[in-house]
Amino acid sequence: MRILGIDPGLRITGYGCVSVNRSGELAVIEAGVIRIPTTGNLGQRLHYLHQELESALEELKPDLMSVESLFSHPERAATGIRMGHARGVILLSAAARSIELVEHPPAEVKKALTGNGRADKRQMQLAITQQCNLAEVPEPPDVADALAVAMCAARRLEGHILTQLT
Amino acid sequence: MRILGIDPGLRITGYGCVSVNRSGELAVIEAGVIRIPTTGNLGQRLHYLHQELESALEELKPDLMSVESLFSHPERAATGIRMGHARGVILLSAAARSIELVEHPPAEVKKALTGNGRADKRQMQLAITQQCNLAEVPEPPDVADALAVAMCAARRLEGHILTQLT
Repeated sequence: MRILGIDPGLRITGYGCVSVNRSGELAVIEAGVIRIPTTGNLGQRLHYLHQELESALEELKPDLMSVESLFSHPERAATGIRMGHARGVILLSAAARSIELVEHPPAEVKKALTGNGRADKRQMQLAITQQCNLAEVPEPPDVADALAVAMCAARRLEGHILTQLT
Repeated sequence: MRILGIDPGLRITGYGCVSVNRSGELAVIEAGVIRIPTTGNLGQRLHYLHQELESALEELKPDLMSVESLFSHPERAATGIRMGHARGVILLSAAARSIELVEHPPAEVKKALTGNGRADKRQMQLAITQQCNLAEVPEPPDVADALAVAMCAARRLEGHILTQLT
């Protein structure tokens, strides 16, 4: 089973695809970022993101997608709205391909990877490096964030769906 | 020249299409709402909105689209984020079809229709009814809001692009 984690952004959207086998073993299939040209207007940037994401979905063929659930910060309302645009495009792509999408609160993702719901960025990067058997810390951090949300979804599946996998 | 105004929403998205001829005369081509089933998850609702919008674009073939620019209200941050998802899908459709999209601040739309940047909903509905020569006040208000942002874009064009129309 393949799980694609996404860390949405209008400049950089991170993605990380992991596979889980029947024994619950995880392996990283591919991870990287979609860098969106900052020259275009908002619509053009969303279109670019959509096209790149569609290519990734076509190639990686995930069975499940996962994103962090969005929390609203009153002091960052404008950022939240802009982020919502990118997230809308990602949710659209998942739904259009009938790929189930799960959302995990940021604290749940942190806890699943480090045991600590308040882990900082560095702790998360190190946990991802170790648990994914990576040769080096993934950069930019958006890659680690995307892998983390994919790993979190994979962990949540263990014991739930894994026994049903054929 | 055809202008399609959109009033984005995750339950109801209003649309209003007007045409402007070389003399600057406005006519309503079609206006209505896309009612999004509230049964699905957010992704499914965005997908429904996207499909209906694509059908409308295919049929109406606008040369220009217009939406209200989004202002962030710290006290309504969560609403803004959700609205951002719907708006992202609309901007994506415009960009994917290379349809130019203009944004107008709400106060500019109100001023263009009533001369008063702080007009209330009722004043706006009456202005739309009168200026579009409608037999009755358009309902739900999302239709009037969509027509208003289309009319505002049309007014802004007068004197700018109309002279270039062939």
